[in-house]
Amino acid sequence: MLPIFLRSVHTRRILWRMRQSQLFTKTRREAPSDEFAKNAQLLIRAGYIHKELAGVYDFLPLGLRVLDKVIGIIREEMNAIGGEEVLLSTLQNPDVWKKSGRWDDASVDVWFKTHLKNGGELGLGNTHEEALTALMTEHIASYKDLPRYVYQFQNKFRNETRAKSGVMRAREFIMKDLYSFSRDAAQHTEFYEKAASAYEKIFSRVGIGDKTYRTFASGGSFSKYSHEYQTVCEAGEDTIYIDEAKRLAVNKEVYDDQGVYAAIGIDKSGLKEAKAIEVGNIFTLGTRFSETLGLSYKDAEGKSTPVFMGSYGIGPGRLVGTVVELMADGKGLVWPESVAPFSYHLVSLGRDGDEISKTADVLYDDLIKANVDVLYDDRDARAGEKFAESDLLGIPKRIVVGKDTTAGEFEVVNRATGTVAKKSREEILAPARGGSASGGK
Amino acid sequence: MLPIFLRSVHTRRILWRMRQSQLFTKTRREAPSDEFAKNAQLLIRAGYIHKELAGVYDFLPLGLRVLDKVIGIIREEMNAIGGEEVLLSTLQNPDVWKKSGRWDDASVDVWFKTHLKNGGELGLGNTHEEALTALMTEHIASYKDLPRYVYQFQNKFRNETRAKSGVMRAREFIMKDLYSFSRDAAQHTEFYEKAASAYEKIFSRVGIGDKTYRTFASGGSFSKYSHEYQTVCEAGEDTIYIDEAKRLAVNKEVYDDQGVYAAIGIDKSGLKEAKAIEVGNIFTLGTRFSETLGLSYKDAEGKSTPVFMGSYGIGPGRLVGTVVELMADGKGLVWPESVAPFSYHLVSLGRDGDEISKTADVLYDDLIKANVDVLYDDRDARAGEKFAESDLLGIPKRIVVGKDTTAGEFEVVNRATGTVAKKSREEILAPARGGSASGGK
Repeated sequence: MLPIFLRSVHTRRILWRMRQSQLFTKTRREAPSDEFAKNAQLLIRAGYIHKELAGVYDFLPLGLRVLDKVIGIIREEMNAIGGEEVLLSTLQNPDVWKKSGRWDDASVDVWFKTHLKNGGELGLGNTHEEALTALMTEHIASYKDLPRYVYQFQNKFRNETRAKSGVMRAREFIMKDLYSFSRDAAQHTEFYEKAASAYEKIFSRVGIGDKTYRTFASGGSFSKYSHEYQTVCEAGEDTIYIDEAKRLAVNKEVYDDQGVYAAIGIDKSGLKEAKAIEVGNIFTLGTRFSETLGLSYKDAEGKSTPVFMGSYGIGPGRLVGTVVELMADGKGLVWPESVAPFSYHLVSLGRDGDEISKTADVLYDDLIKANVDVLYDDRDARAGEKFAESDLLGIPKRIVVGKDTTAGEFEVVNRATGTVAKKSREEILAPARGGSASGGK
Repeated sequence: MLPIFLRSVHTRRILWRMRQSQLFTKTRREAPSDEFAKNAQLLIRAGYIHKELAGVYDFLPLGLRVLDKVIGIIREEMNAIGGEEVLLSTLQNPDVWKKSGRWDDASVDVWFKTHLKNGGELGLGNTHEEALTALMTEHIASYKDLPRYVYQFQNKFRNETRAKSGVMRAREFIMKDLYSFSRDAAQHTEFYEKAASAYEKIFSRVGIGDKTYRTFASGGSFSKYSHEYQTVCEAGEDTIYIDEAKRLAVNKEVYDDQGVYAAIGIDKSGLKEAKAIEVGNIFTLGTRFSETLGLSYKDAEGKSTPVFMGSYGIGPGRLVGTVVELMADGKGLVWPESVAPFSYHLVSLGRDGDEISKTADVLYDDLIKANVDVLYDDRDARAGEKFAESDLLGIPKRIVVGKDTTAGEFEVVNRATGTVAKKSREEILAPARGGSASGGK
């Protein structure tokens, strides 16, 4: 039975509206010449992110807004399956990693390490199994304390030698990592499937559900198989083999393992090969960490038993990059409503104080009153320049206020399809709510 | 004129309710023997935080909830004065720090540094003047682009040799740092005073306003004076000298500088010495960073002019520690409503399924329906143990449901004062909303 404890709704309904004349970021025509990934090139050009160095990016207001919306969606789904949120430290104590055998660069090749002034080496967290397992020994003693599901959104640091995929493979990135603590394999499996469903909801809510496949992968040293969520995309670093009818895939690691096909009931012949982006993964860890770090519980008979664990990761930044790779077009970014920085881009073609500007000002105020997220391009600039910039920013709906606009009817351009619709003031103000954390495309 | 651009309300009205039987953290009788600070001792005992190593703490669900509420208050006040939120990277490119002359350990003695696998040293951000100033060169060109106010909540890493003040002086901690970019000293000063007012609102909203003084400090290499916000508390690491009538103070650095008394119009004799915690600081940076990093703008006459900067810091974790130091009592934590993890602690003295439990269950459901943040102690445990634990957790109002409780009237205990009031169901459900981000004590 899933605990019903956390009816937490971490409501991140963010009301945001802004005059573009005051947005500090500017768009640019060219990305830096050392940036090769389409996602980062576009996000930089549109002023969503800034590149500090290869694989290290800053999130600027529009980019942070998208990242926050993705995080909000993931948080809701983690809370819905009973997750309790924490925030563990970046700085890692070597002691626990030595116990698990993962402190050496020979076993983990992406460590960043540093030194305390008063002696001793520290690591920067590349994952948090060790720290959390050690922590949980203080909070789990009895079978009554299980199951538990603990997650965080925390920076991970990975010393990648290749960092050429923009925000999709960064050296520093926020990861949602959830860890499950169960009595045994049966209790674990029940949650594992719930987590899998939650992941599918997340991918669907950010708009990539139809291209994302549950993919069988090697379980590594932990279990026979693990699962990746792979989104079909030419920019992907991975190759997967898809059974379209069953909406399942296998990755390259297990493609030649005949056992996998029997295990999941698909036929190797007829699989379709595709490039894909790994947007999430779920792992059965079993007792790998609980045994080495001493996390056990007393069962109903008083017998000490190692806790059965799982881990579940999604990188919100990688999801942002994936959405860009899949949806952007020749003109720039294209955001689904659920993660767009704003719902509307209100573009005024007026000049300071003229009738057009006044009409746009009134509509802007009305949109604010109706709780619609809106970016208002109130700047003095040429129409062509404004439209090109609006296309680059990728906000789902554009309302243009020009000399032919009457106060009662507006032209609304759909960024994704390019279709233009005439809408009355009432139509624009009435149904445009929601969006932020309410899901859907 | 302050830009009115960001009417952003990053609404973090979080609805939270939880059954204590499912909260994964447990309280403990003793803090770790190597923990000397009262704030960390109590927060660890109550299960709000976990100590990884000296000066490095994890935030557990209750602690993260408090931290989030403090962050929410700061964010609202930063947005209200025109702040635009970003998220800069932890990993720092040495190039910009070399330009400003702050890469060497001789100039900054708290650096943590690390290495890229494929060559080159990186720093972990201890502050972000360099990175942001360099970034802003891409977004500021003309006087029309000024002023700008950019802030973040981001981890800072400081390689402290002494880390004995719990969450008040951590080696890794979240800081809100805002940087202002103005045309000149006059435009800067106008914002500086607005930021000072915002800071005073923040301290008042988290419940420490009456003990917090605007304190004159050395301006370092940047300007004649800077300002600290110092909260009078025996646990403080600083000493300040207070003019109570004027609600101003000076710190130790400038106490013997006669110029400061003339500058601020207070009399050195009659100042009251006190230990204090620095909860915030605001600095005039002038052109120190814009000149070394090439951040200039063209004024109305087309002349290139360095941008005039300021910086404004608050550590949310230190604020949490300060609230603990000031308000906790012999029985445990005491939270003001504005930052409490929950408004109500509903304590049932029933046993699984009895009439008392049923009465408590119904009230819990009603509180949820009324959008009241509530932790529900639904566990089978002795009343004395439950009360002691409730005191330790420090939730502002406790409702006890016991054998004498009727369904229409409840006993509400005020954690801070210990007073007990009889309240009807309607009184409990009606006015108890708000709290989260609405300020006040």
